[in-house]
Amino acid sequence: MNESGSASGAGAMHGTSVGDLAEGELLERIFPRLPHAEAELLGPGDDAAVVQAPDGRFVVTTDTMIHGPDFRLAWSSGHDLGWKAAASNLADVAAMGARPTALVVALAMPKHLPVAVLDGFAEGLRDACSALAPGCGVVGGDLAVSDVFMIAVTAFGDLEGRAPVRRDGAQVGDTVAVAGELGAAAAGLRLLFDRAVDEAGVPSAEAAAALRVEHQALVEAQLAPRPPIAAGVVAAVGGATAMLDLSDGLALDAGRLARASGVAIDLRSDALGADAALALSGGEDHALLATFPASSGVPAGFRAIGTVRPGAGVLVDDRLYDGHAGWDPYRDWDDAAG
Amino acid sequence: MNESGSASGAGAMHGTSVGDLAEGELLERIFPRLPHAEAELLGPGDDAAVVQAPDGRFVVTTDTMIHGPDFRLAWSSGHDLGWKAAASNLADVAAMGARPTALVVALAMPKHLPVAVLDGFAEGLRDACSALAPGCGVVGGDLAVSDVFMIAVTAFGDLEGRAPVRRDGAQVGDTVAVAGELGAAAAGLRLLFDRAVDEAGVPSAEAAAALRVEHQALVEAQLAPRPPIAAGVVAAVGGATAMLDLSDGLALDAGRLARASGVAIDLRSDALGADAALALSGGEDHALLATFPASSGVPAGFRAIGTVRPGAGVLVDDRLYDGHAGWDPYRDWDDAAG
Repeated sequence: MNESGSASGAGAMHGTSVGDLAEGELLERIFPRLPHAEAELLGPGDDAAVVQAPDGRFVVTTDTMIHGPDFRLAWSSGHDLGWKAAASNLADVAAMGARPTALVVALAMPKHLPVAVLDGFAEGLRDACSALAPGCGVVGGDLAVSDVFMIAVTAFGDLEGRAPVRRDGAQVGDTVAVAGELGAAAAGLRLLFDRAVDEAGVPSAEAAAALRVEHQALVEAQLAPRPPIAAGVVAAVGGATAMLDLSDGLALDAGRLARASGVAIDLRSDALGADAALALSGGEDHALLATFPASSGVPAGFRAIGTVRPGAGVLVDDRLYDGHAGWDPYRDWDDAAG
Repeated sequence: MNESGSASGAGAMHGTSVGDLAEGELLERIFPRLPHAEAELLGPGDDAAVVQAPDGRFVVTTDTMIHGPDFRLAWSSGHDLGWKAAASNLADVAAMGARPTALVVALAMPKHLPVAVLDGFAEGLRDACSALAPGCGVVGGDLAVSDVFMIAVTAFGDLEGRAPVRRDGAQVGDTVAVAGELGAAAAGLRLLFDRAVDEAGVPSAEAAAALRVEHQALVEAQLAPRPPIAAGVVAAVGGATAMLDLSDGLALDAGRLARASGVAIDLRSDALGADAALALSGGEDHALLATFPASSGVPAGFRAIGTVRPGAGVLVDDRLYDGHAGWDPYRDWDDAAG
């Protein structure tokens, strides 16, 4: 999004594809829809943006969403994609204990992609920032042509003078706590795979729309998640010794925290909701898993789900967890799209 | 590159594809090959990285390279792709007058991509940083699976207390100057399209290798460019009033600088080398175009090629330029790959 361009193709764009417009025309459509970042000193339109880093450091994370392994256009609207791309990256910033400040967004789009999807994408970025991380906005990006629709977001945060909350600081005796939902995104994905398809198993927009009415909370936990972004700073201020974003399932991610910290994580199944197995295995929650000294208690927004023990690995009710340990795109993707 | 993983698949990897290895195994291959960033406070392995921003601000730019419109695997090695992905982003940081500090890299790879390409890619990032921006390195990234090979790099820089050099500051009477080559990348691309193909017009690795021996400078200007990164800071310190990276051709990019600044740019054809038309139209030079007050002269590494005039647009030898104005991927890409 470095260049401004020729006259706008505003007005009714039904049936218009991104390949029908010049890059400058696409940018003119996007810019008014994007969220403004309060930390922006120089925004889109030059070779690079300039962003405030009042702390003298900045937090940075990047994550990619690919049509096929990561989303289906029959299930996700452009708005959903923009929302989820922002939300999932904001969660990684929050998991360091940082306040999100800015995003840059690279899009690779097939020429046949409807312009309405791009419009909705920009509005989804805007609405997610507004709802989840007020003040955060888009400071730059890139548009490219590709046969596969791909979204790469890079997100920034400010530590406000605090140390980053890493995943390697958990101490034996700490309380293990979580902010946000467990298993809902996976339940939503299961519903979509089971019921938002036609008789041949092909993803169906009509079936997905009906399913979203019937099971709004679960489907939207998958398609347009609402991670507890503000809880990241709350945890840092509240003395969290370690924290991470739950993207690949509680069991797998708790195992990462345990390995990094050289401890075992012992979870209580009765704290994991009605379907503990799903809470343990389900990916894409974007909840925050953190550990707090037992003496300091668990801050608002978090709930205790276990204890840090000596040893290694993840235990559930004192026994080593041996269930399915989450999502690995290199192992699990079946090449299906839709 | 947020997770460490299982046992490494080191050793001879001939014939091994990225789909044969788990994400953790791929990361274990990449990490030792990546350049370290001096500004890195916390590197890969957590939810996000933490990078120094001693200036209290940071410069950020992102750019995407897609198999097909942006590169052919028959022509570019993995090392070339890593080098070019770094170099083109570093040039955007330099064009703000900033010193590059760090990169994050998102890769979407087909399962069948040879692991050797990924290894070379990481080494290309390392070698480009070492050669062009010592001290800059990779602080994080993301790996994903896609049917289309896609590279998204986000680059950061530090302004060291200076104002960013924008494209809108050129003043009437300023000297227009350039650092770096003009037209060589386009000449290299023309050679590749003309001669690095088989009889059916399909890109040929053998023909490209032979061509690279015969016309090393031009082919490598296209496949593994060496933009004058350090010249960005030199220009800023030397009083540049405006600057940009020449990515889409001198005429088109000079037009952007002229429009942003509300001036005309008058270029002298005799300062544009042996093939002035190619210098004006050729894309991907990643040279730096800057304007300097006539009184201050042109700093080392830059050469004067024209003057800022009242008016609008780009002139060559006092006449409005009406040649082909550069590369627009939405207009120019023909869907061919290779």
